Amino acid sequence: MTIKLIYWPFLQGRGEFVRLILEDAGAEYEDVARKPESEGGGANVVTQYLYGASDACVGFAPPYLIDGEITLAQMPAICAYLGERFGLAPTSDGDRSRALQLQLTVADVVNEVHDTHHPVTSSLAYEEQKDESLGAARAFREQRLDKWLGFFDRVLADGGGEALVGGALSYPDFGLFQIVEGLCYAFPIAVERSLGDAPRVRDHVERVRSRPRVAAYLASERRLAFNEHGIFRRYPELDG
Amino acid sequence: MTIKLIYWPFLQGRGEFVRLILEDAGAEYEDVARKPESEGGGANVVTQYLYGASDACVGFAPPYLIDGEITLAQMPAICAYLGERFGLAPTSDGDRSRALQLQLTVADVVNEVHDTHHPVTSSLAYEEQKDESLGAARAFREQRLDKWLGFFDRVLADGGGEALVGGALSYPDFGLFQIVEGLCYAFPIAVERSLGDAPRVRDHVERVRSRPRVAAYLASERRLAFNEHGIFRRYPELDG
Repeated sequence: MTIKLIYWPFLQGRGEFVRLILEDAGAEYEDVARKPESEGGGANVVTQYLYGASDACVGFAPPYLIDGEITLAQMPAICAYLGERFGLAPTSDGDRSRALQLQLTVADVVNEVHDTHHPVTSSLAYEEQKDESLGAARAFREQRLDKWLGFFDRVLADGGGEALVGGALSYPDFGLFQIVEGLCYAFPIAVERSLGDAPRVRDHVERVRSRPRVAAYLASERRLAFNEHGIFRRYPELDG
Repeated sequence: MTIKLIYWPFLQGRGEFVRLILEDAGAEYEDVARKPESEGGGANVVTQYLYGASDACVGFAPPYLIDGEITLAQMPAICAYLGERFGLAPTSDGDRSRALQLQLTVADVVNEVHDTHHPVTSSLAYEEQKDESLGAARAFREQRLDKWLGFFDRVLADGGGEALVGGALSYPDFGLFQIVEGLCYAFPIAVERSLGDAPRVRDHVERVRSRPRVAAYLASERRLAFNEHGIFRRYPELDG
């Protein structure tokens, strides 16, 4: 049965972590809202699932995944589910939990990056909290970026350099790829500086990028470009 | 073998979600840093595990859990691990993922509440970002609080009212208990208003509170009081 992903059709966002796993797994899936409205797509599909915008109560916010009888929300929970379903997760109890731990660390970076352009509230636009964003982005660049990349570099080093957990690529490896790609887009100046001290992270990104299905996906029209609607936004005033 | 929890000894924080599950499970555990320094406790135990503060690389930040060969970080990953180990988690694939989804929603509330008093950066004290906090807390109270509580009220309603997932108490139920307790501490005026529209959440908190082991724990010295070092802080200027 075809898996359905329900996510905003015009941005990568948290949905992209799910898309990358579906793509690398070669899963048969539909990115429902990206279909034309005449074929049942469009952003209003997401709204139908969104808590508070309709009568639905699947999960508080997208992405949503529908796999037969299972309907699920929360990016790390969906990635863990898909990782285990498609052999992109470790199998021992300890390593399974460790993979989830690292996916949650990826999600923490996503939240912090989001808050560099939305430090006051997600209910207001960036332009309405731009002053606060300058301070938040500076704190992120100066006090957090090196530390996050250093952490993942060290995890890769401890595991032999090829994968975050257990010696074989699993779902958090795609998460790390995506946050580094996003950071390079949003903070090109700061990240270029920080990656110099995280050579294993840099290599890891290239390793994931060259996976045949990932490479095919990135070259396809299915991969949306980064833009200023998503998590990783290029506002030059926030970089440096 | 005794399970070890490594968390700051002077606050509830994210460690409290782990403590509640260990307590309800009747697990044999040591809250290591809360022991006297002469017995190997103290905050410096946490520092020894903290990424960047020592040579350790278990996880980016506490809580940390050690269970025999397994060492783990990230509150939701630890809660899922303990829930499954001690029968406080659903067993079907769909419900297992759903429990994790709801624990991650609990964690999202924790992050948002943290950011009401640390909107700019976690690297500075509240007093250094108090102006920004006034706006962030107001946005949280006016635009998010009702919605979060309403979401959990609806999940309880859809599940029959007794538990969040699958009809039996599981680890996210303790998470919901803890965030409501914390919200009542931090925003007593706003939360009293919002709970009026979330009667199932209010009942649920009392149901968890009256579990014999939870009740014994809450009455013991092991339960730290809420205070202004944790996630949920009572700053009267942020309530209303």
